[in-house]
Amino acid sequence: MVVSEYDDVIRLEPTDQPATRRGAFTQDWMIGNAVNGGVVMAAALNALREHLAADPDEVTEHLDPVVVSAYFMTASAPGAFTASTELMRAGRRLTTGQVSVHQEVDGGQVERMRAIASFGNLDGTDTYRQSAAPDLPPPDECVSAQQAPPDFLRHNHFLDRVDIRLDPATAGWAVGKPSMRGLIQGWLRLRDQREPDTTMLALALDAFPPVAFDLGLYGWTPTLEFTGHIRRRPAPGWLRVMLTTQNVGGGLLEEDAQIWDSTGALVAQSRQLCGVRPA
Amino acid sequence: MVVSEYDDVIRLEPTDQPATRRGAFTQDWMIGNAVNGGVVMAAALNALREHLAADPDEVTEHLDPVVVSAYFMTASAPGAFTASTELMRAGRRLTTGQVSVHQEVDGGQVERMRAIASFGNLDGTDTYRQSAAPDLPPPDECVSAQQAPPDFLRHNHFLDRVDIRLDPATAGWAVGKPSMRGLIQGWLRLRDQREPDTTMLALALDAFPPVAFDLGLYGWTPTLEFTGHIRRRPAPGWLRVMLTTQNVGGGLLEEDAQIWDSTGALVAQSRQLCGVRPA
Repeated sequence: MVVSEYDDVIRLEPTDQPATRRGAFTQDWMIGNAVNGGVVMAAALNALREHLAADPDEVTEHLDPVVVSAYFMTASAPGAFTASTELMRAGRRLTTGQVSVHQEVDGGQVERMRAIASFGNLDGTDTYRQSAAPDLPPPDECVSAQQAPPDFLRHNHFLDRVDIRLDPATAGWAVGKPSMRGLIQGWLRLRDQREPDTTMLALALDAFPPVAFDLGLYGWTPTLEFTGHIRRRPAPGWLRVMLTTQNVGGGLLEEDAQIWDSTGALVAQSRQLCGVRPA
Repeated sequence: MVVSEYDDVIRLEPTDQPATRRGAFTQDWMIGNAVNGGVVMAAALNALREHLAADPDEVTEHLDPVVVSAYFMTASAPGAFTASTELMRAGRRLTTGQVSVHQEVDGGQVERMRAIASFGNLDGTDTYRQSAAPDLPPPDECVSAQQAPPDFLRHNHFLDRVDIRLDPATAGWAVGKPSMRGLIQGWLRLRDQREPDTTMLALALDAFPPVAFDLGLYGWTPTLEFTGHIRRRPAPGWLRVMLTTQNVGGGLLEEDAQIWDSTGALVAQSRQLCGVRPA
């Protein structure tokens, strides 16, 4: 059986503590000097999902992440990590828990990220009203991250795993011509064509270039807090992603993401608070 | 010294545990069958703020809540509560911690809400770009909650504490004529004229009637998760509040709130995931 690169990086092994699982991040998922935060969240959600599924008192139908709030404290590095989980409340519609990701640094444990998340069952979810999906040129007519300079790609192996195609109308920042609208949109899928599921959407929500780039803010924009809502199970195929921002000031901005699946259904949205550092 | 009703409900007493503080919710802050969630958050943030301020290793300039993510597990009731706090990380720009609110039920401790929050220093924050504040008729020309039927007000003492004036253009739902746009906007201040501060904004973000009402969805819309960003210290005076929603389905909707202060500056925004229950 071929395991996708994505399934491999979120895979967990048991430890002698029932609520602690072990995994490993690799260079393959780095973006700049850190492991991509979406990968950290997907691995953490996978750990919490396994905890909930293993709990004998648990309503095991609650296996889709529905909402997750993650606080990023330090940048994750390639290498081993632990994910420690806690069941907070098993409700009729949602089950809520907490997960904390640690890595060993100089012999001590450093917390990378802590999240609270609720899981539910998104099977057969109806849509009453939703944001309209953007019109995009087909993926082949969009700007691929693979067109970035080789030196850039060498430090961003994440872009070898995740196929991102940007709408040329919102990619001018890549050649020094940001639109100044605060808008980046395009297509996304895993390069090995592993199809999206509800946990993978957490990664997809945090995979695009920072929307700050479209405002000409090219510095580092670390995610301080991220909250994602997963609203439907995605259909197979390309995902459409749209990032926007409205409020920039005090060294902070919010980045909103929306994702539609190949049928045009809104499947996820997120808001993150980012720092804005000088370029 | 006259203590405002708001300061009174978020007031905490020490316990014999340094990271646990005690307070009391009262009937005065109930909305329907529960203590208003914004009040629970403001009290919890106050507890975390006191913890951070008391920590000898802490950077004490980080006393404005900047981002808070709260998960509501059970409805808070009038009566005693405890707030247990933990410092997660003291950084240069932000300090992050966790807080959990419990109440005693039938001799056991039940968790009402758990939140992670980061605090910073919002003194003198600049604004580079922001959402435009809505044009509203003056408060005296808006619809006051005090115009609601007496039987309704008897079960919603919160509305005696918080002065909400709705733009008549977005208040048709109150007379069975929702605009179906998913928009409610208006003015807010504390009725005793205690001026807003950054912690009070958490309450203000969760004080308006559910935006679902403007879609003709009059059932209970419990807050499952709430994330608020506090971006500036508010100037004294009335706050302008705008609620919107775009995505409704699967028994869930998101409610987005934005708040501008009396100078027109965007001071806070939030998104919450709500359940949609039949009326």
